[in-house]
Amino acid sequence: MQPRAKPSPEREAYYRRLEARDLSPLWEVMRELLSTEPVTKATPHLWHWAEARPLLMESAELISAEEAERRVLVLENPGMAGAHSLTETLYGGLQLIMPGEVAPSHRHSPAALRFILEGEGAYTAVNGEAAYMRPGDFVITPSWSWHDHGHEGEAPVVWLDGLDVPLMRALGTLFAEGYGESRQPTNRPPGHSYATFGHNMRPVGARHEAPYSPVFSYPFEATREALAALAAGSDPDPRRGFAMEYINPLTGGPAMPTMSTYMTLLPKGFATEPRQTTEAQLFSVVEGTGSAVVETGDGEVRLAFGPKDHFLVPMWMRHRIHVDEETLLFSFSDRATQEALGVYREAA
Amino acid sequence: MQPRAKPSPEREAYYRRLEARDLSPLWEVMRELLSTEPVTKATPHLWHWAEARPLLMESAELISAEEAERRVLVLENPGMAGAHSLTETLYGGLQLIMPGEVAPSHRHSPAALRFILEGEGAYTAVNGEAAYMRPGDFVITPSWSWHDHGHEGEAPVVWLDGLDVPLMRALGTLFAEGYGESRQPTNRPPGHSYATFGHNMRPVGARHEAPYSPVFSYPFEATREALAALAAGSDPDPRRGFAMEYINPLTGGPAMPTMSTYMTLLPKGFATEPRQTTEAQLFSVVEGTGSAVVETGDGEVRLAFGPKDHFLVPMWMRHRIHVDEETLLFSFSDRATQEALGVYREAA
Amino acid sequence: MQPRAKPSPEREAYYRRLEARDLSPLWEVMRELLSTEPVTKATPHLWHWAEARPLLMESAELISAEEAERRVLVLENPGMAGAHSLTETLYGGLQLIMPGEVAPSHRHSPAALRFILEGEGAYTAVNGEAAYMRPGDFVITPSWSWHDHGHEGEAPVVWLDGLDVPLMRALGTLFAEGYGESRQPTNRPPGHSYATFGHNMRPVGARHEAPYSPVFSYPFEATREALAALAAGSDPDPRRGFAMEYINPLTGGPAMPTMSTYMTLLPKGFATEPRQTTEAQLFSVVEGTGSAVVETGDGEVRLAFGPKDHFLVPMWMRHRIHVDEETLLFSFSDRATQEALGVYREAA
Amino acid sequence: MQPRAKPSPEREAYYRRLEARDLSPLWEVMRELLSTEPVTKATPHLWHWAEARPLLMESAELISAEEAERRVLVLENPGMAGAHSLTETLYGGLQLIMPGEVAPSHRHSPAALRFILEGEGAYTAVNGEAAYMRPGDFVITPSWSWHDHGHEGEAPVVWLDGLDVPLMRALGTLFAEGYGESRQPTNRPPGHSYATFGHNMRPVGARHEAPYSPVFSYPFEATREALAALAAGSDPDPRRGFAMEYINPLTGGPAMPTMSTYMTLLPKGFATEPRQTTEAQLFSVVEGTGSAVVETGDGEVRLAFGPKDHFLVPMWMRHRIHVDEETLLFSFSDRATQEALGVYREAA
Repeated sequence: MQPRAKPSPEREAYYRRLEARDLSPLWEVMRELLSTEPVTKATPHLWHWAEARPLLMESAELISAEEAERRVLVLENPGMAGAHSLTETLYGGLQLIMPGEVAPSHRHSPAALRFILEGEGAYTAVNGEAAYMRPGDFVITPSWSWHDHGHEGEAPVVWLDGLDVPLMRALGTLFAEGYGESRQPTNRPPGHSYATFGHNMRPVGARHEAPYSPVFSYPFEATREALAALAAGSDPDPRRGFAMEYINPLTGGPAMPTMSTYMTLLPKGFATEPRQTTEAQLFSVVEGTGSAVVETGDGEVRLAFGPKDHFLVPMWMRHRIHVDEETLLFSFSDRATQEALGVYREAA
Repeated sequence: MQPRAKPSPEREAYYRRLEARDLSPLWEVMRELLSTEPVTKATPHLWHWAEARPLLMESAELISAEEAERRVLVLENPGMAGAHSLTETLYGGLQLIMPGEVAPSHRHSPAALRFILEGEGAYTAVNGEAAYMRPGDFVITPSWSWHDHGHEGEAPVVWLDGLDVPLMRALGTLFAEGYGESRQPTNRPPGHSYATFGHNMRPVGARHEAPYSPVFSYPFEATREALAALAAGSDPDPRRGFAMEYINPLTGGPAMPTMSTYMTLLPKGFATEPRQTTEAQLFSVVEGTGSAVVETGDGEVRLAFGPKDHFLVPMWMRHRIHVDEETLLFSFSDRATQEALGVYREAA
Repeated sequence: MQPRAKPSPEREAYYRRLEARDLSPLWEVMRELLSTEPVTKATPHLWHWAEARPLLMESAELISAEEAERRVLVLENPGMAGAHSLTETLYGGLQLIMPGEVAPSHRHSPAALRFILEGEGAYTAVNGEAAYMRPGDFVITPSWSWHDHGHEGEAPVVWLDGLDVPLMRALGTLFAEGYGESRQPTNRPPGHSYATFGHNMRPVGARHEAPYSPVFSYPFEATREALAALAAGSDPDPRRGFAMEYINPLTGGPAMPTMSTYMTLLPKGFATEPRQTTEAQLFSVVEGTGSAVVETGDGEVRLAFGPKDHFLVPMWMRHRIHVDEETLLFSFSDRATQEALGVYREAA
Repeated sequence: MQPRAKPSPEREAYYRRLEARDLSPLWEVMRELLSTEPVTKATPHLWHWAEARPLLMESAELISAEEAERRVLVLENPGMAGAHSLTETLYGGLQLIMPGEVAPSHRHSPAALRFILEGEGAYTAVNGEAAYMRPGDFVITPSWSWHDHGHEGEAPVVWLDGLDVPLMRALGTLFAEGYGESRQPTNRPPGHSYATFGHNMRPVGARHEAPYSPVFSYPFEATREALAALAAGSDPDPRRGFAMEYINPLTGGPAMPTMSTYMTLLPKGFATEPRQTTEAQLFSVVEGTGSAVVETGDGEVRLAFGPKDHFLVPMWMRHRIHVDEETLLFSFSDRATQEALGVYREAA
């Protein structure tokens, strides 16, 4: 790319005349507009469960479910102060629901995912159907689907929220609407969508033309079985270990069109080869301990993790992960968006 | 359509000259070539399990597995004598394998399906992986995939075979090859494909570009759960009851490109409204009793069925099914072929 | 594959009891059902234009357009006497329409294609739109689309008809219907579909959900330009020369779902390497002379061709084509069907 | 959505402790994060050709092609000062190339389009092939394709550039690379891709697996013919007139995955009904005069346009267009991105 054009009084005068006409000289800014490699404000970061959980529990005393609407602690990327974002496109948060509470029904164009960290008895109702959630379950509340949460159990329930709010803000396509009641009516039994579409069958004549999976809830038991089978019958990918993606069983594509969601199994002692990709990932540690080493422009950052910790690997930073024991990592990224737009890339 | 052209000596002489040049007058045959509605040679028919099973068991004494290669009694449609066919495009058979026997490995361009009727301990190995089969399981051996069967159990195992042999004969695209050994080597644990692709996940980076499902075996337990869920959460289709199709979870389409495969649940006392469709179906009764009434050109044929009976409803014959108790019906047809070619049709 | 099972009185008696129950022993016929390689009744053949044209013209005197409905000489494959077929799945014919004549409107499930051989001023009306045809134009009348022909010019018009009638007969999915009037009403100007969808644009919001191309007529001028460009900017395929397929511009797939249609340019003196494929092709020579050599089980058949001759290369017969001068060949096959069903094959 | 939570000393103290752990309370910001309707910084605006052209010509004297690399005046949306953007996702500019000049070869992940406004003799070379451009032609230089421009004619050539740079910045997926030479070598004749893929045919066996159209250049002549045909054979859409989208003829989808590109014909005197959509559009007036009226939060803005003027209608602002004479409008938007991600919306 070119060096900046030489300044001169004539040019400056010309530029002022351009400005008056809402025009500007590309050659003065092309180097900035077209960087040669991705530049992200996000930094590698780890949120310790041991620190986050007490703060989360404390929130239950400081604000009611009604007042909060969603009682969530946002995972703020230190490099993006005030942006309420993990990355340029993704948002993450830890949501707490106490027994008997309800998070009222609403819908919004940003897509949301839940990954259950702790507790039982809570449900998410999506488009007229409730899914009861247990740790390790993965639940989607796709773009513009009504959803509300409730808790019929006896102990706190916590889950990870992942949303594409920053992406939707960047696109401008933000819509949101309250349902007007705390609970939407349900018209199908709990688990109906999974039982109906999750067993490699589809109802003859049934329509599901939405651009997201008809399966709202992916139970941990099935996910774990899939990972165990993959590990038993194939070799790990040197850069990713045994990694599986949650899919829409009607297309084989991602469960929702904007976010890719994964569960990864790393065998005891496994150390990945370095990986560099345009997908930033937030990892939620399900089981196991280890560390991720991320290369930033300023050196390496080491993130030592244990169960229920969360850590972010920003885009295009080379990184590797080593685990001490067999480890399960849930993660999500915006790779689905990048692939839909033809710009996903991984360094060879 | 036109009446036949009038005969005349000039025309006859002309036709003879045409014939000498391998030409013929379309106007003499157009009415025959283009019938106004489907004409099938197949007739409605029921094969009683009570009759077929003893004959099948007798075969074990009359011919060895080695000599037979596949010990199968072909379901011969009475209307198509000597064609070894159920319909214009489909073949069906009842296969018996005795403990310790092996059906040697081969492959062929016709696609095959199995639906397990009786017994445990037998397996089908497909493309390097064994699937152990139990009653109600559905197994595919797609076009040109190596497959062999074996039996490690202690009692006879019987399954329904469905193939598209007549279709492949009509197309001319018949290939077959012996493996040269009775068993192909397996390189993955039993059930690997189901565990890997059957849980609404896919391995990241895994390739499965074949035009058929990566799931070779669909366990009855999951199928039953799916049907129960559908029945619990929706209304039955008046013409079909609760009908589900086995799908390829990477496309949402049929498990194999030529045949559609279904499991249908009809509640106790349910009577379908008449249905008329270009898909002929062979039904295998899993549970329940009832009767199918099929309208032929000559009147109605009533087929009273019970467990493990098989009955065929030919194409474009109006029919209805009534059941006495809750009934599960496995079935297959060539609808997938017709839809791929844009000619499937159902009367309104 | 196995040798036939040994006969014995016990087996014969058993077989008779099977027959009484509409069952039969697979092991007696498996070798026949599953041939190791395609077996076709079709033979290589060439229909000389010099012979066919006078016979075709003579038909105009022997039968009126009204009486004939379609005045067509069927290309009868000598190996399939009385089948009115080119191959197991394809039909071909030469259709003549005289000035002022009309071929009345009808529709049928078999798909039809036209390739114009001689004359101007005739049209085909398809689904409410007329396409005026000139030599070298390719026109589709897809499955179940109303179509009729008329002729407003001054000299005979002849075209090649290609249909999938034998395939539809094999599937049983034959429907046909007369319109009741000789001409369907047209509601769009001639050439509308080509102008609307044929220029790499599509109307915003327009629906065309049919499984065939919205472009009904592919003008020869554009086809020739495409072939010239391909020839100018790339190397010929050793087995096929410069071959292009007519596509549906909304999918990139074949113009109609059952038949593949091609125009091939072979440079002066070009000799193809041998090709062996499951697609039988009927070639219509547009320009040029040469010969095709086809290997049958009994030796080689040489088909020497010139302009407007038609020749058939059956499936799975190795063949090569040599041309004396630059040659253009239109052709069609059932490869689209075979690919949709996952059984197309080409020898390496 | 909820009102903001009530402030209290306890909460403030808690929030500070959260901040120290890179956490924040969602309930304080949820209203801002999830707006109920799209909020855009872009404002309706029109850039007059009569003002822009002289400034553009002046640039040729102030900066050489070598120094500028691309001699472009950026269309700056007044509402997004300093962002070098038309909207949240789109960039536009007017590029000038003088006879004999060359814009050196480079590539970048943002996709680019050109719409030719004035002059002849210039070319864009894309991936080894040159396309000579004339007014009204539409040319794509897809993501990561090498491209350079040259000018072999005798008068200035000006075109509109459209890129998705702001979108790529938002995603972070920015890559760019210089070729190292001013011209990439070409290995196919000019116009080869259009002639090869632009005539409703595709080369048999040719691969084009890129996520964009194989047709790099869409000639105005064909576009105009398509619009004329549409206008002759159908009724205008009340909100859009006769609008066509440039497509990828191998998929029927947009020419490039991130941007939708249109040509619209409005008949003399036509006035559209109001339209409100999430796609912002930049219009380039090809022929005709008229005015667009855009409803902002503060009232209506009227943009009176004539040939070669450019005007922007921001997202989700109701607008209508009236024309005095038959008018042709080229336009582009990010609707393709929104549809790929499932969030495109139009008010009923």
